[in-house]
Amino acid sequence: MPPPEASAMYPADLIISARWTIPVEPEGQVLDDHALVVRDGRIVDLLPAAEATQRYAPRELIRRPQHVLLPGLVNAHTHSPMTLFRGMADDLPLDTWLNEHIWPAEARWVDGGFVRDGAELAMLEMLQGGTTCFNDMYFFPDVIARAVDASGLRACVGMIVLEQATVWARDAGEYLRKGLAARDQFRGHPRVSMIFAPHAPYTVADDSFREIRLLANELDTQIHMHVHETASEISASQKRHARRPLQRLDELGLLTPLLAAVHMTQLTAGEIPLLASRGVSVVHCPESNLKLASGFCPIADLAAAGINIALGTDGASSNNDLDMFGEMRSCALLAKGVAQRADAAPAATVLGMATLNGAKALGLGDRIGSLVTGKEADVICVDLSAAATQPVYDPVSQLVYATSRDQVSDVWVAGRQLLADHQPLVADAPAILARAESWRARLSAARGSVAHD
Amino acid sequence: MPPPEASAMYPADLIISARWTIPVEPEGQVLDDHALVVRDGRIVDLLPAAEATQRYAPRELIRRPQHVLLPGLVNAHTHSPMTLFRGMADDLPLDTWLNEHIWPAEARWVDGGFVRDGAELAMLEMLQGGTTCFNDMYFFPDVIARAVDASGLRACVGMIVLEQATVWARDAGEYLRKGLAARDQFRGHPRVSMIFAPHAPYTVADDSFREIRLLANELDTQIHMHVHETASEISASQKRHARRPLQRLDELGLLTPLLAAVHMTQLTAGEIPLLASRGVSVVHCPESNLKLASGFCPIADLAAAGINIALGTDGASSNNDLDMFGEMRSCALLAKGVAQRADAAPAATVLGMATLNGAKALGLGDRIGSLVTGKEADVICVDLSAAATQPVYDPVSQLVYATSRDQVSDVWVAGRQLLADHQPLVADAPAILARAESWRARLSAARGSVAHD
Repeated sequence: MPPPEASAMYPADLIISARWTIPVEPEGQVLDDHALVVRDGRIVDLLPAAEATQRYAPRELIRRPQHVLLPGLVNAHTHSPMTLFRGMADDLPLDTWLNEHIWPAEARWVDGGFVRDGAELAMLEMLQGGTTCFNDMYFFPDVIARAVDASGLRACVGMIVLEQATVWARDAGEYLRKGLAARDQFRGHPRVSMIFAPHAPYTVADDSFREIRLLANELDTQIHMHVHETASEISASQKRHARRPLQRLDELGLLTPLLAAVHMTQLTAGEIPLLASRGVSVVHCPESNLKLASGFCPIADLAAAGINIALGTDGASSNNDLDMFGEMRSCALLAKGVAQRADAAPAATVLGMATLNGAKALGLGDRIGSLVTGKEADVICVDLSAAATQPVYDPVSQLVYATSRDQVSDVWVAGRQLLADHQPLVADAPAILARAESWRARLSAARGSVAHD
Repeated sequence: MPPPEASAMYPADLIISARWTIPVEPEGQVLDDHALVVRDGRIVDLLPAAEATQRYAPRELIRRPQHVLLPGLVNAHTHSPMTLFRGMADDLPLDTWLNEHIWPAEARWVDGGFVRDGAELAMLEMLQGGTTCFNDMYFFPDVIARAVDASGLRACVGMIVLEQATVWARDAGEYLRKGLAARDQFRGHPRVSMIFAPHAPYTVADDSFREIRLLANELDTQIHMHVHETASEISASQKRHARRPLQRLDELGLLTPLLAAVHMTQLTAGEIPLLASRGVSVVHCPESNLKLASGFCPIADLAAAGINIALGTDGASSNNDLDMFGEMRSCALLAKGVAQRADAAPAATVLGMATLNGAKALGLGDRIGSLVTGKEADVICVDLSAAATQPVYDPVSQLVYATSRDQVSDVWVAGRQLLADHQPLVADAPAILARAESWRARLSAARGSVAHD
């Protein structure tokens, strides 16, 4: 059969064909030798590769014959600028770590320049590791949002709120005002969403929570918060508020489908159905929870209750990388150990947590997270030809249990290619790395010595 | 000061200088801008790089200005040929996994060719990930030993013993005879040690254990065995032998410094001092224990009792990679969660487990595992210039908490370079990968369909 006339073919900006395609919806599906068709930044078709080139006339055709094509990963909880503190203070009790290292370092060093340079380093790392969207919480959200805009990545940038004064704001009212002002600047931005980010129940007062709830409902905007991270947080709340944090949040009207509750290592049997009935998403950060000895989030129980579980790396101070492949592996492994069941958290479920569930938790479930026609083309290719990922019986298993972040070869966000054959196209990697090294030199000099002297 | 005459300088085969050197002995030490001097396959000096080029005239000088130089990693427990089953059956209850997938697949497919091709794939993966020595347990140890010889890597190859008949031997007596015959072939080999590998207390009878104990003592040869991997193993032993496996092994005289006991997820408070007093090494396999939901090895308690703890990946069927960087990270993180102490298993301790402690567990503590004059030059370089490992406050933290296996740039074993700037020099990677793919095609065809159909 002769090929159809070019004039009879549909136009497209881009076709990516790959050995395997994992659309994430439906869960567990793997398509052999398929192609994704992109036009105006959106997915317009997903079909056998042989048919794609018959039906579409693309401006660009990319073939990845030993790769998996899948949705970009969604890192549902991080503090991107903290990459500049990576490895500065490890293996310490939580109180020592926070009180003697992280908080003093933040008080001394954090400013707009620090936040910009740290966020850029984080975004370079995430890009190279296949993360196309991240959910951030840090000071100077306006600076972070500008950096995201320039990077080509997608993010939810938290309008952080605390009662405590910092370099960014004096009190909860000022945090909120400055956050909302930043939100106004980025209203309608195709890749930047500004969402509410009250830090945690123990750092935010009832009145501030009430105001955030009103605003979030009115603006239909997500809320990103640390909740039930440690046992001491629970006991402090019981002393101060005579109730557990979740009960307090429920009474304040915060437990809604808008809430992405991060950590959740301390849950009673009764709290799990409560979360499910309120439609709250849980963001699981297994490596951070382990490293800080915070406790274990019972994700097999949460999943059984029907709760949407997303996955996050947390910041580089408590992980120490922003590697969603490592986080998927830690999640799948730890869930089995905690549930004492080797069939807990199967690979396809965990891949869903790192993609579609993350998108849902951030209010982006209709826009990204799976390879479905009409969604934005946030996609990545992963090269499975390395010895460590051969042979391939099951590409989903390979991604979760054996793939390293370095096997990500290509990344697109909204159809724009940001990483091509491992090379960043937009980020100026040497300049970003030089600025990170310059911060290290300043911080190390101020500490009087480098850590290993 | 003018440089000394070349004739006044000491000859050397190789000098490797690096931005940081971590000798592992003493624990936690990091040397800036040092150089390792190698002659006749051994370390002859470790000194400031500037002095090295004044004092030695090497045939080869390698500079790694953004890298860490450290001892090669020791994978103290694996089943290398099982890489050919990688990802074939995951997320299943232990019984289903073993009885319906792994054992039938082994019965059908394992022969000398399978073992050779699987071991070669495993060694390529380990080489590229910085593992220079591994401790193996599988059928056809003679085939594995020949593959190790050809690869240039170092290994302890287990003389496997079971009561049960397999393609390799009919009964424990034949396993032992065939193992000892292979040992004779490799006697005095500089990189291959054949050690005893009774599979586990539940698969080996008392008489066989007595014979192994006599031979091990007589030949001063290590013993590599799965011990206390699961709770069901304990209860089965209590039914059959009216005692826990460790008590039985102690009565049989197996608990000695020659024993490397793998897994140990089920330990009573009384068993820890017993292990310590007998000088037994424990090989911890955190990712396998999690993936199979076997339980948690209490390594913080073992370390406090002074027990030598090594680290292993286990086979690719239960991990699913042979990545010692990932295993170090999982070890350091999980130990904190299990001990409920963020200061458990600090990075330098975990790096010691993956190097010197592994060497000790395998009876090689005086030959490898640290950068000490007189030891064999099994060393690796790791490039920390990636965004995910910048900035560098503490290279030890970076290796354990943030480095990916792909950052290993160079590997030497006994002074011979096997990996240069990420490229294998001895292994024929394309041929090894093609053979792995050919096994996958055969196995998939026989199963009637590939896993994702």
